[in-house]
Amino acid sequence: MFKRVAIIGLGLIGGSIGLALHKAKAAQQITGYDLGKGVSDRARKVGAIDQPFSAIADAVRGADLVILATPIGAMRSLLQNIAVAVSPGAVVTDVASTKVQVISWAEEFLPSSVSFVGGHPMIGKELSGVEAADAALFQNRVYCLTPTTRTSAAAIDKVSGFVESLGARVRFLEPAEHDGQVAGVSHLPFVASAALMNTVASSPAWGDAAMLASTGFRDISRLAAGNPEMYRDICLTNSEPLVRWLNAYITTLNQLRDHIAAHDARLDETFAQAQQARLKWQGSYDVE
Amino acid sequence: MFKRVAIIGLGLIGGSIGLALHKAKAAQQITGYDLGKGVSDRARKVGAIDQPFSAIADAVRGADLVILATPIGAMRSLLQNIAVAVSPGAVVTDVASTKVQVISWAEEFLPSSVSFVGGHPMIGKELSGVEAADAALFQNRVYCLTPTTRTSAAAIDKVSGFVESLGARVRFLEPAEHDGQVAGVSHLPFVASAALMNTVASSPAWGDAAMLASTGFRDISRLAAGNPEMYRDICLTNSEPLVRWLNAYITTLNQLRDHIAAHDARLDETFAQAQQARLKWQGSYDVE
Repeated sequence: MFKRVAIIGLGLIGGSIGLALHKAKAAQQITGYDLGKGVSDRARKVGAIDQPFSAIADAVRGADLVILATPIGAMRSLLQNIAVAVSPGAVVTDVASTKVQVISWAEEFLPSSVSFVGGHPMIGKELSGVEAADAALFQNRVYCLTPTTRTSAAAIDKVSGFVESLGARVRFLEPAEHDGQVAGVSHLPFVASAALMNTVASSPAWGDAAMLASTGFRDISRLAAGNPEMYRDICLTNSEPLVRWLNAYITTLNQLRDHIAAHDARLDETFAQAQQARLKWQGSYDVE
Repeated sequence: MFKRVAIIGLGLIGGSIGLALHKAKAAQQITGYDLGKGVSDRARKVGAIDQPFSAIADAVRGADLVILATPIGAMRSLLQNIAVAVSPGAVVTDVASTKVQVISWAEEFLPSSVSFVGGHPMIGKELSGVEAADAALFQNRVYCLTPTTRTSAAAIDKVSGFVESLGARVRFLEPAEHDGQVAGVSHLPFVASAALMNTVASSPAWGDAAMLASTGFRDISRLAAGNPEMYRDICLTNSEPLVRWLNAYITTLNQLRDHIAAHDARLDETFAQAQQARLKWQGSYDVE
């Protein structure tokens, strides 16, 4: 059980962490801070935190666990800002989508008396804001932790205990391994979706073609509606793995384009391979 | 009102056409034929047709309107097969996803006493089979008709009347215009989805990465689960427009890859452009 947990960033993820920790009685006190006007007060009202602070240093001071639940774009300055206030012996973790870059900032800015363990809960964020926070958000979800060879066993234990108190399943990965895998299954998809949307919408016929777009277009373009700044920051902090995946995707598309141009009657084999892989995935992970 | 309508192919689309025509009292008699064992009897049971036939010639003989509601892959031989049986003065229409190729087969095989008007209802087919047929399937949906300069005004009127009796909204397009537009909003999406699925699933890390895939991956890969033979046949019959769209998509992806590799901080502008286009589309067409 933690004495004092500080949650920095009180959106859907930070708010849900607070609710889940309260529900599990895993923290004696939860403090919170959010840049947004009135957000930390609303977080207290919904029961996500006990004590809101208007200064980030006050929120983290005295905490034995600090959770950084802001978008990746805020992480660098956040780590700089908490460095002077975080108590010796505290463990700091984050929830950002990319890990190598965040870990290098943590190593650069945090004092050596403080441990950092990178984390990433695998949550489909279809809602946002502390009003949508839900104590059950992490239930049975995979929650990646990416300790390095420099991370102490005690810090890993603390953060694992925190993740388990949320009801999530810990999965340990090397930071670079994590970033490569999420680049493929999470970052490549939104880049592919945005690129498709821009390709189609920049055509002169789009005004008419839009009326013919149906459920297939809806599905493939849904990710294009996501937050542009968040997408940019993910691309900027996970550039190398994402570029590798994009190159692989472009190669696949080039090959498929050549088969289509050549009227290759065995195109069904390519589509059958994709169908099998998709059906197997959806069967294992219980999604439509 | 039609005296006798023949529906060839009694899946979701053919079955729903039958139900809708019955509901609108737009046909005195509806005959039906389907290759699948027992399908036309089931179509009669659910009220989609009045009279099933086990020979295609018997189904179309005497009909003033013949509706070809089979997958595109069956259209060539279907047009050959009905040519000898279809009555002079009859109008034939189809529901296939590509039009230029179907029209050229119709012109090649149908006798000159018979008119052909290509059609394409814009329906998101998430279900299939005559059991899922629904008289309201076409209600307020766009239904493309692609007459050519050789199509008589009388034939266009007849097929327009048929479409309106389904509750759908007729949209006239040139066949090549139609094929170019659906290649962008319907065929490019499934090729992009299948290519992404194959790219990711062929990586050595896929077994592990699959566990990190969440709602974004679910959305972008959903189309990859579609019927491989249908996808192949669409690619084979709409090859040129699809290759043009694929080239445009690959160009967009190459540019985006270069911006990501260069850590271009203005990437948010690209994503904002995609976001705006997606939000505008979903606002106009009332989808999520």
